[in-house]
Amino acid sequence: MQNGPATSTIHTMADVWDAYRDELEGVEDQVRKNLDSSVTLVNTVAAHILSGGGKRIRPLLLLLCARLCGYSAKDHLILGSLVEYIHTATLLHDDVVDDADLRRGRQTARKVWGNQVSILVGDYLYSKAICQIVGFRNQAINEVLSEACRKMAEGEVLQLYYNGNPQITEFEYRRIVEYKTASLIAASCRIGAIIGNASADQQAALFRFGQHLGIAFQLADDTLDYAANGDRLGKSLGQDLRQGKATLPLLHLLQQCPDADKQMIKDRMETRTLTEADLLRIISLMQEYGSITYAMERAHELVVAANRDLAPFEDSSPKRALTVVADYMVNRDR
Amino acid sequence: MQNGPATSTIHTMADVWDAYRDELEGVEDQVRKNLDSSVTLVNTVAAHILSGGGKRIRPLLLLLCARLCGYSAKDHLILGSLVEYIHTATLLHDDVVDDADLRRGRQTARKVWGNQVSILVGDYLYSKAICQIVGFRNQAINEVLSEACRKMAEGEVLQLYYNGNPQITEFEYRRIVEYKTASLIAASCRIGAIIGNASADQQAALFRFGQHLGIAFQLADDTLDYAANGDRLGKSLGQDLRQGKATLPLLHLLQQCPDADKQMIKDRMETRTLTEADLLRIISLMQEYGSITYAMERAHELVVAANRDLAPFEDSSPKRALTVVADYMVNRDR
Repeated sequence: MQNGPATSTIHTMADVWDAYRDELEGVEDQVRKNLDSSVTLVNTVAAHILSGGGKRIRPLLLLLCARLCGYSAKDHLILGSLVEYIHTATLLHDDVVDDADLRRGRQTARKVWGNQVSILVGDYLYSKAICQIVGFRNQAINEVLSEACRKMAEGEVLQLYYNGNPQITEFEYRRIVEYKTASLIAASCRIGAIIGNASADQQAALFRFGQHLGIAFQLADDTLDYAANGDRLGKSLGQDLRQGKATLPLLHLLQQCPDADKQMIKDRMETRTLTEADLLRIISLMQEYGSITYAMERAHELVVAANRDLAPFEDSSPKRALTVVADYMVNRDR
Repeated sequence: MQNGPATSTIHTMADVWDAYRDELEGVEDQVRKNLDSSVTLVNTVAAHILSGGGKRIRPLLLLLCARLCGYSAKDHLILGSLVEYIHTATLLHDDVVDDADLRRGRQTARKVWGNQVSILVGDYLYSKAICQIVGFRNQAINEVLSEACRKMAEGEVLQLYYNGNPQITEFEYRRIVEYKTASLIAASCRIGAIIGNASADQQAALFRFGQHLGIAFQLADDTLDYAANGDRLGKSLGQDLRQGKATLPLLHLLQQCPDADKQMIKDRMETRTLTEADLLRIISLMQEYGSITYAMERAHELVVAANRDLAPFEDSSPKRALTVVADYMVNRDR
C-alpha cells in the first residue's frame, strides 16, 4: 500500500492539499461526472454551488480515514463526491431557511434562481447521492449515511425550533451542533474506515474522531461570527444573532453579563433586530467576559479529544494529515 | 395463503377499503409508530399532514401487489407506511414551491408553521424513511425506491423549469408526469412484487402497471382542475394555470383554438394572472374543442394499459381490487 509522503513532511494544510492533490482531483472529477441529470437546470444549479469554493473537508476526511486503515483502491473518490453532494443539498436548503443571499462571498443559488429551484435541486442532489450509495451494496455504508442524514434533518428542525428563544440551554445547543454538523463529518470518517476494512473498534474510534471534530468545527465557526474579519470569511459579523440563533459565545455571555445587558441581548434575539452599535456592544462584552475565549477553548478541547481518538492508530502520513486537518478546522481564520 | 374475500365481492372502492381494512389500519399504526423523533416539532408537523385525509393509495397498491404475488407476512405494513412518508415529504416541499395555503381543504403545514418548518420536516420524513428502508437490507427495494426519489426530484425541477412557458410539448409534459407522480406509484407496486418473491417478469409487469396508473392518475387530476366541483376536491379550479403550469387539457386546447384565444391563454400563463372571466372562457373553450374529453380519454387508455399489465396474473381478490383501484384513480370526482 502507498501511504503517500513521509510523515515528517506534513505540517500545514498546504502540505495536506499537496500530499493528497491527485486524490482530491479524483473527487472533483467524480463531482463533475455525476452532474448528469437529463434536466439541464439541475446540472447548472448544482454546478454553481459545487464550484463555489467549498473546501471538500468531508471527502478529504473520508479519504484520509480510508488511507489510515490501509485502503488502496478507488471507491473513496466517488464516495467522497457523494458525501459532498449530500452536504451541498443541505446548504441549498439552509440558504432558503436562512434567507441567505451570500455564501462564501458569492450569490446563493436561491438568490440567483429563487427558493423553489434551491429546494428542488437540493432534493435532487440528496436523492441522487442516495441512489449512487445504494449501488455500492454496502449495508454498513447505507446505515451510517442514512442515519447521518436523519440526524442532520432533526438538528435543522431543532435549531429552527429554538430560533429567537434565548432560553436555550448549552446542552440543547450542543445537541443541535452534533446533529446538524457533526453527523455527516462523523459518517464520512466512518465510511473511510468501513471501506478500509477497519475493525469495529477502529470504525467507532474514527466515528468519534469525526464527531469531536465536527462539533469543534461548528463551535469555532459560531465563535468566528463574533470575532472574525468579516471579509475573509465572506460574511459579515453577528449573522447568527440577527437570525435569532444563540450560539456558544452568546450563551456564555448571557450567563456572565449584568441583567441590563442580558435583557438587551434577549430582546435583540427575540425581535431579530440588531444595530451595528448593539453588535459592537455585544462583541465588547464578549471580550470583557471572556466569551470568545471560553468558546474557542471548548473547541480546542474537542480537537484534543479528536486527536486522542486517533491514538490506537500507528503513525503514518494519513494520521499526521488528520491531525493537521483537525487543527485547521478550528483555526481557519488565523 | 389467505387471499381475503371472494373475488366476486369486490366491485367498488368501498369494497376494497372494506376487504383490506385490517391491513390499512396496520399501515396507519406504523405511520403513527414511526413518528418518534426526539424533536417534538417534527412529530407535530408530520402528524398534521399525515392525518390530513390522504387516501394511502401508495401503501394500498403496495399491499395489493404483495398479496397478488402471494405474500403473507407483515413487512408490507411498515413498507407501506414508509412509502407514504416519502410521498408526504414531497407534499411538504411541493406546498412551499407552489405557495399553497390549502391541501385537501385544510391549511398546509407551511401556512401553519411557515416555509422553513415545511422544508425541514420534509427533509426529515424523507431521510427517516430511507433510514428505515435501509434496515430491511433488501437491495432490490433500496434500488427501486432511491431511483423513484431521484426521478421525483428531477420531475419537480423539470416542472418548475417549464413553469410559465406555453411552448412545452406534450412529450415533455408526459415526462414530468411520469417522473414526479408515476415514479413512486410504480415503485410501490414493484416493492409489493419484490417482497412477494415475484419473478423478474412479474416485477416488471407490476412496475409498468404502476407507471400506467400513475400517469393516468395525474392526467385525470390535471383535467379535474378544469372540470371538477371545486368544493369536493378541496381546491378551486384553474390552479395549475394560475401557477403557470400547462397540463394536458390546456396543451390540447392550445393546439385547437383560434389564434386570438391562444394568445390570451399564453399571456395568462406567462403573466400568471387569471380572472374568473378568463377561466370561464377557457373552460368553455375546452368544452367546445373537446379538450377535457381528450385528456380524460388519454387517462382511460392508460388504465386499460394498466389492466393489461395484470393479464399474466391469475384471478384473485387482490387482482380484482387492483383493477377497482385503477378505475378509481381516474374517476375520483364522479
